[in-house]
Amino acid sequence: MSDLFWPGDERAGDHLTDARLVAAMVEVEEAWLVVLGHEARLPRDLDPGVIGADAEAGGNPVIPLVAALRHAVPEETGRLLHRGLTSQDVLDSALMLSTRDATGAVRAALEAQVTALVALVETHRDTPMVARTLTQHAVPITFGLKAATWLSGVLDARDDVAALTFPVQCGGAAGTMAGIVEIGLDPSAARSGLAQGLGLADALPWHTNRSAVTRIGDALTRCTDAWSRIANDVLTLSRPEIGELSEGTGGGSSTMPHKANPVLSTLVRRAALTTPHLAATLHAAAADQTDERAAGAWHAEWATLRTLVRRVLVAAGQTNELLTGLQVHPDRMAQTLGAARDAVHAEQQSLAEVAGHQPTGDYLGAAGALADAVLVRAQEAPR
Amino acid sequence: MSDLFWPGDERAGDHLTDARLVAAMVEVEEAWLVVLGHEARLPRDLDPGVIGADAEAGGNPVIPLVAALRHAVPEETGRLLHRGLTSQDVLDSALMLSTRDATGAVRAALEAQVTALVALVETHRDTPMVARTLTQHAVPITFGLKAATWLSGVLDARDDVAALTFPVQCGGAAGTMAGIVEIGLDPSAARSGLAQGLGLADALPWHTNRSAVTRIGDALTRCTDAWSRIANDVLTLSRPEIGELSEGTGGGSSTMPHKANPVLSTLVRRAALTTPHLAATLHAAAADQTDERAAGAWHAEWATLRTLVRRVLVAAGQTNELLTGLQVHPDRMAQTLGAARDAVHAEQQSLAEVAGHQPTGDYLGAAGALADAVLVRAQEAPR
Amino acid sequence: MSDLFWPGDERAGDHLTDARLVAAMVEVEEAWLVVLGHEARLPRDLDPGVIGADAEAGGNPVIPLVAALRHAVPEETGRLLHRGLTSQDVLDSALMLSTRDATGAVRAALEAQVTALVALVETHRDTPMVARTLTQHAVPITFGLKAATWLSGVLDARDDVAALTFPVQCGGAAGTMAGIVEIGLDPSAARSGLAQGLGLADALPWHTNRSAVTRIGDALTRCTDAWSRIANDVLTLSRPEIGELSEGTGGGSSTMPHKANPVLSTLVRRAALTTPHLAATLHAAAADQTDERAAGAWHAEWATLRTLVRRVLVAAGQTNELLTGLQVHPDRMAQTLGAARDAVHAEQQSLAEVAGHQPTGDYLGAAGALADAVLVRAQEAPR
Amino acid sequence: MSDLFWPGDERAGDHLTDARLVAAMVEVEEAWLVVLGHEARLPRDLDPGVIGADAEAGGNPVIPLVAALRHAVPEETGRLLHRGLTSQDVLDSALMLSTRDATGAVRAALEAQVTALVALVETHRDTPMVARTLTQHAVPITFGLKAATWLSGVLDARDDVAALTFPVQCGGAAGTMAGIVEIGLDPSAARSGLAQGLGLADALPWHTNRSAVTRIGDALTRCTDAWSRIANDVLTLSRPEIGELSEGTGGGSSTMPHKANPVLSTLVRRAALTTPHLAATLHAAAADQTDERAAGAWHAEWATLRTLVRRVLVAAGQTNELLTGLQVHPDRMAQTLGAARDAVHAEQQSLAEVAGHQPTGDYLGAAGALADAVLVRAQEAPR
Repeated sequence: MSDLFWPGDERAGDHLTDARLVAAMVEVEEAWLVVLGHEARLPRDLDPGVIGADAEAGGNPVIPLVAALRHAVPEETGRLLHRGLTSQDVLDSALMLSTRDATGAVRAALEAQVTALVALVETHRDTPMVARTLTQHAVPITFGLKAATWLSGVLDARDDVAALTFPVQCGGAAGTMAGIVEIGLDPSAARSGLAQGLGLADALPWHTNRSAVTRIGDALTRCTDAWSRIANDVLTLSRPEIGELSEGTGGGSSTMPHKANPVLSTLVRRAALTTPHLAATLHAAAADQTDERAAGAWHAEWATLRTLVRRVLVAAGQTNELLTGLQVHPDRMAQTLGAARDAVHAEQQSLAEVAGHQPTGDYLGAAGALADAVLVRAQEAPR
Repeated sequence: MSDLFWPGDERAGDHLTDARLVAAMVEVEEAWLVVLGHEARLPRDLDPGVIGADAEAGGNPVIPLVAALRHAVPEETGRLLHRGLTSQDVLDSALMLSTRDATGAVRAALEAQVTALVALVETHRDTPMVARTLTQHAVPITFGLKAATWLSGVLDARDDVAALTFPVQCGGAAGTMAGIVEIGLDPSAARSGLAQGLGLADALPWHTNRSAVTRIGDALTRCTDAWSRIANDVLTLSRPEIGELSEGTGGGSSTMPHKANPVLSTLVRRAALTTPHLAATLHAAAADQTDERAAGAWHAEWATLRTLVRRVLVAAGQTNELLTGLQVHPDRMAQTLGAARDAVHAEQQSLAEVAGHQPTGDYLGAAGALADAVLVRAQEAPR
Repeated sequence: MSDLFWPGDERAGDHLTDARLVAAMVEVEEAWLVVLGHEARLPRDLDPGVIGADAEAGGNPVIPLVAALRHAVPEETGRLLHRGLTSQDVLDSALMLSTRDATGAVRAALEAQVTALVALVETHRDTPMVARTLTQHAVPITFGLKAATWLSGVLDARDDVAALTFPVQCGGAAGTMAGIVEIGLDPSAARSGLAQGLGLADALPWHTNRSAVTRIGDALTRCTDAWSRIANDVLTLSRPEIGELSEGTGGGSSTMPHKANPVLSTLVRRAALTTPHLAATLHAAAADQTDERAAGAWHAEWATLRTLVRRVLVAAGQTNELLTGLQVHPDRMAQTLGAARDAVHAEQQSLAEVAGHQPTGDYLGAAGALADAVLVRAQEAPR
Repeated sequence: MSDLFWPGDERAGDHLTDARLVAAMVEVEEAWLVVLGHEARLPRDLDPGVIGADAEAGGNPVIPLVAALRHAVPEETGRLLHRGLTSQDVLDSALMLSTRDATGAVRAALEAQVTALVALVETHRDTPMVARTLTQHAVPITFGLKAATWLSGVLDARDDVAALTFPVQCGGAAGTMAGIVEIGLDPSAARSGLAQGLGLADALPWHTNRSAVTRIGDALTRCTDAWSRIANDVLTLSRPEIGELSEGTGGGSSTMPHKANPVLSTLVRRAALTTPHLAATLHAAAADQTDERAAGAWHAEWATLRTLVRRVLVAAGQTNELLTGLQVHPDRMAQTLGAARDAVHAEQQSLAEVAGHQPTGDYLGAAGALADAVLVRAQEAPR
């Protein structure tokens, strides 16, 4: 439940653990029995270690899972179990189930972030600070607008995560549903029955069309893109020489007693360095599909998706904590802006000359109105 | 107009060439003059080489472009030119303009592919062949269903490309629109005016929120994922030992007179090996954003997007040609299926036993109905 | 010890598990106590779960580890423990220790592969088959030369893995070794003492120079490149229509009784689809280093390296098993070559005409001599 | 010669341009004629555009190149031209030629960087500043040691680039050298003759073993890793609030007259965001090799390598200029260190207590000696 190599991993709970995957696969087999007209409660306490150890022989964990279930259930149940399905139907559906649940947790975290960011924007709508471009002082901005920009990234991620669908996989050995027809079921009804039983979207077999998977990867990476953009600002602005932001609780050091490190930002940034590569792996696998089931491309997805989903869950929680605890220091912002006054108004001066008038006011332009516009969007439902 | 390192590059025409980027940037400056109430025709024959050579000093090509334009136009036009904008406004808007146009060409290609694939599905709805999973014979399938699966990937890509939006960038030096306000314009009206003038989507400034860019990268990679999945099948099934498909016109060899290589599939596959990495680069850049304009992350996007877009355009055309010219050999399909008869009906046999009846028919299951369902979707508008 | 999401994971044993990382970190602290002139046996049964759960607060597992050790040891030992080191010294050294061990296992696997491949080359030095380029029949080749080409890739990987070094990390809080000097140690002697105690290479502090890590990633990816190239050939040549190779033991299906899938090749191919992205993540992290310890770039390495190393270990074993059990079918090779005779000798015919003589012999060229040359190299020590 | 999408591209000169690739391919064909005993001067002014436009049909530019050459030379020369070679022999050898030359330029740049860094280390061996870890003040360091750390990364890159080899490709249609034997040449002598004629390393055919290519990609990425690590520090330390470093000449803004942006660092950082993905593409292609020439994997390399090499050349020059012009501000360093005195000596205080003495001196530890050790290494030949 923790991972020494990925501090904070426990935030992802048991989403996409081995045990949960077993439970999800069993749930799929059980729901399929219902479609077959045979209700039976299947055991859920199968040992993932045993199944895992036997998974290599056939290349996937469904084969030993079905064997273990057959061993554990009455003969009639065992005779019907899995009939008409293929391993990929069970595993893909189980992964979609698990990812749907995990994504639900991501959505909840995104909502919490929206709430925290809305509060930051509202509180600091008129807090002036210096804008920086290519690291150098540019013109004045408000912290409210900066936070609104953070928020716009989170809203984009929220839109994309909300648009995800989690399709059932139900195609049989090669996507023709031939086994399902052979045992006398109406294929369309059977498939939608399975989808309904699992709470997944009904869908044509997608054994070799992996858009559903790559879309998940892309949308989740859009989350870490947005969070990293926030973390980067916190990391920069909490440097002692700048001191305009600080994390609520700094992290300690193994040797330097005075340190208060921006640990949450550090760990969020960490995630974002890895997720683009994980999403790209899913695309590379999708592009490697061939025949009616690829030899390797499908298999490369599972752990990649698991790792990606868990890292996003961890970073989601860390971002929430970061935003909720964030300390803003308007005095330092004002001080830096004041010291840079001449420089950051140089553009204003030159534009006022063009316009033929004296520079007017604080040169914050539409900062307030732009922040307000993002607040309005935050209240709307995801697109 | 051709690229020795990327045969077929000329299919991308002049989309996102240096010359077109100059033209697009000039178009943005011209549209902005209209917003400023000053209509003027700006020169479009600026030498990209001259501008490019001066682009490094400031890190982007807008600075020398504006200098060159000021040099070439009447004083009053030069005085107003670019006022209130920042380099990123011009370059981002120009890239969106250019990418919108290129994406239009991708959409047209996708439509043509849909048409070609619909014809393949209809023609071969009932052409039996052997399905293959993990490279081995599985159960029977139809070529129509295989082509329908190809089509479903193309339709997913079509949906995602159709959903893209191309936002105007108009934020001024640091996204506050302060310069625009300073020169007396209503910021909201100015921004929507620029958007309208360019045919781009109106949008709040997105200098450091790069969702628009990563979404383009992801959607375009979904295209090559789908095309590569087709190409992989053609490459496999046109092996002489299999011979179930062949390209319309094979490519020659520099030394072996008898060769007829599946060159189009080869080049499509080539593209798909590279695009996931390009899209990942866009995500990595998005996640590296900081301040009000990042030092490097923004700059890494331009060439990455250019290369990605052009490769997708090239692969789009090659896939069209591949699909239009594809030769299907039902005789070879039937022959292989016949020879594998016992094996590919083993599952049927075992399921019929479970069901308590004799195996019925050709074990093609719902292949026809599933293919039909994809055909229905193909007639619908993109989601 | 198994991973449902990555069948075969148990082949990696406990290399780079949480428990092993704890043990390695304890080993580093213990060796450091020796440098401090204080020999003490530290407990090795610390609960990784407890340490992991506390790792997030400071961003790395060393802080809770040191706390747990201090709690468990006599006061004098606790007072000296870790003095002069920083978290990164302990974690980097522990990762190098662990990776050195794992890499040793990779090297052993590579040696076994060399042995198996040498046998294949020798046995089939003169076994003719058809060469294929861009999927189409080209000219004759021998299976011995094909296997020699596989071998050359393995030898390249062997060279690169053999050249890896595993440096100790010993720099103190910011790489100046100030704490070490403060407590009265000679920094150079202390560092080489720690290196010697751990069996690592002595090295200047490399807190922000991550070449050691990226070189490991690159070399390990070169392994999967080589193995995937073998697996691809097995996957192609074991297609039933080709039938020139087959895996020793095929994998079964959850539903199709007749299936004998090339599972080992499938799983090796799987790994190679993911490792380039993992190695790239290490480079991206290395390039993100800044200050005297980066906020995130360092942290992104640990799990990435762990996953990469374990996947390579798994694929190493699978490749060994694949090569040892590989079944070669010279009859099918001869049959296909015979059927393609006219085509695959077309080039010979045209070249003989240029040379002004009749085509001579089987057109195998230097296949035997080239295979022999790789055999010679296999007997040499890695470069 | 410039690229609007990649400012500074002209620094790469004409390395790996279309024209240079044509010249290199012609050089290979000419050297091969010598091996065939036929000296002839081939035309070098072929139009790359014409060849490029015809490259798609066969999938590579060698086929139209050979056709164009045959058209342009006397019949006897044309009859012998290219005999025994395959397209891949010519293209791979030409790419190795071109990359060898470009890599020579990279090596020269690395040497210049070493010189510049040695000077920085020597000048600032004793210039104190504050070290920063996870963005926060840690302990004192010297700028000399920081620069020595930069230098160590550059030296690692220098080692890896120096170790690269550039092998000739000479295998004929399928790597058996059958055509070469057929026309009566000794294959071993012919191959080494070609290698010698071109100044490439003699090597067994490596059509499907792409270690040579991936090693180039990895080593070049190690360069940008090292340069980006420098650029990141410059970007941070030249922030106005920190002000400890600045670029020699800042870049301007299109609208803000006061700006002096760290443009060189920005553009170097840009490159490093993209190169890991390019190197990973080369690995992905290497792992996709199959048969005696892959359908797509080979083709994906060319443009990827070209882009990677050119970006590294550009970043090499920019890093040189950055280092040569770098302005160091010891006063600001001293000021910040002084203000942070209590905090950055907290560790010293606690260690002195452990050691039972009063804190001694400036707590710079072995900074000077460590910097000296890197200087010594800089004088040694690359490993």
